[in-house]
Amino acid sequence: MENERLERQIRFILEVDKLKEVFRQTVCTQSRRAENDAEHSWHLCLAVIVLAEHANAPGLDVLRVLKMLIIHDLVEIDAGDTFAYDTARRAGQHAREAVAADRIFGMLPADQRDEFRGLWDEFEDVRTPEAKFAAAIDRFQPCLLNCSTEGAAWKRHGVTKDRVIARNAPIAEGSAALWEATSRLIDNVENAGHIRPGP
Amino acid sequence: MENERLERQIRFILEVDKLKEVFRQTVCTQSRRAENDAEHSWHLCLAVIVLAEHANAPGLDVLRVLKMLIIHDLVEIDAGDTFAYDTARRAGQHAREAVAADRIFGMLPADQRDEFRGLWDEFEDVRTPEAKFAAAIDRFQPCLLNCSTEGAAWKRHGVTKDRVIARNAPIAEGSAALWEATSRLIDNVENAGHIRPGP
Repeated sequence: MENERLERQIRFILEVDKLKEVFRQTVCTQSRRAENDAEHSWHLCLAVIVLAEHANAPGLDVLRVLKMLIIHDLVEIDAGDTFAYDTARRAGQHAREAVAADRIFGMLPADQRDEFRGLWDEFEDVRTPEAKFAAAIDRFQPCLLNCSTEGAAWKRHGVTKDRVIARNAPIAEGSAALWEATSRLIDNVENAGHIRPGP
Repeated sequence: MENERLERQIRFILEVDKLKEVFRQTVCTQSRRAENDAEHSWHLCLAVIVLAEHANAPGLDVLRVLKMLIIHDLVEIDAGDTFAYDTARRAGQHAREAVAADRIFGMLPADQRDEFRGLWDEFEDVRTPEAKFAAAIDRFQPCLLNCSTEGAAWKRHGVTKDRVIARNAPIAEGSAALWEATSRLIDNVENAGHIRPGP
């Protein structure tokens, strides 16, 4: 029945409203409060439509990149946010998130459940040009916010520049130009004395 | 110069971080705090990729719908949010927002400034199938949140059901099926005693 399908889709759209309550370590540039996953996901989409021309791969499927980024953090509704520099917690991250993916995408009609799960798996595998660019933007955006808030989250967690470089250098796999620009931003934060070069 | 273009694009991406501080009348379903424009924009994108099959127009350009919705509220960074039921303030809304569009999209390289302005104009004109579907989703999502929070924003502003119907009936121009489902949700809110039928 048509209506049953639509009602199921609407229940899913309502369920994922919870993404607005999953808070991250990165802070917003204006109020300096913690950013949440819904805002972050929007900001990534915005960055994609502005920066797609800088992807290493020609002829990128921008729609697929956007779909990946719109849904990439839904698993955190159940699994919570894992700070990029929290090595201990990152160990079990994928297993926690895979259980969440089963429940959350499982709310959709079967064809869409499979489509969204496929997009999430593709994003996590970081092998296709679209996933590499999506992953690059997912690293670039928090890095940009950190660089624009005197390294707020990095300072709070004592993250040094060498770790910021190690975490963000894979941006180059999606966009060499974007990594070049990002590494200059990181240099500026170090030069301004907001992060230390190493331990 | 390649780098100058990219740096300009990055300044734009940073500027629009301000969208996270533009708060709306609608509340989130969990914490019941006001939703902001960045979260709202993400939620619209999510709804589009779930509901695109219900658009009246076959062969919808989903990428263009997403681009419109990613940028549709950027003008509110300067012009502020205008509550859908605030008739007095809605009178000058488009003029205020057009000035904001000049400044904000003007931060981009000329070709992207023109592309984004074109997308915003298309959204505002609500004439193409893509704009009609985008506009439908932009009405449906706050309506869904209101229906799921006992009509919170409607009750606070004394908005009666007849006005909710008048405001949201144009959803049918983008998706007849979605308007049918939405009108049932509105009926439920009235039946539960959360909004009055009329003045």
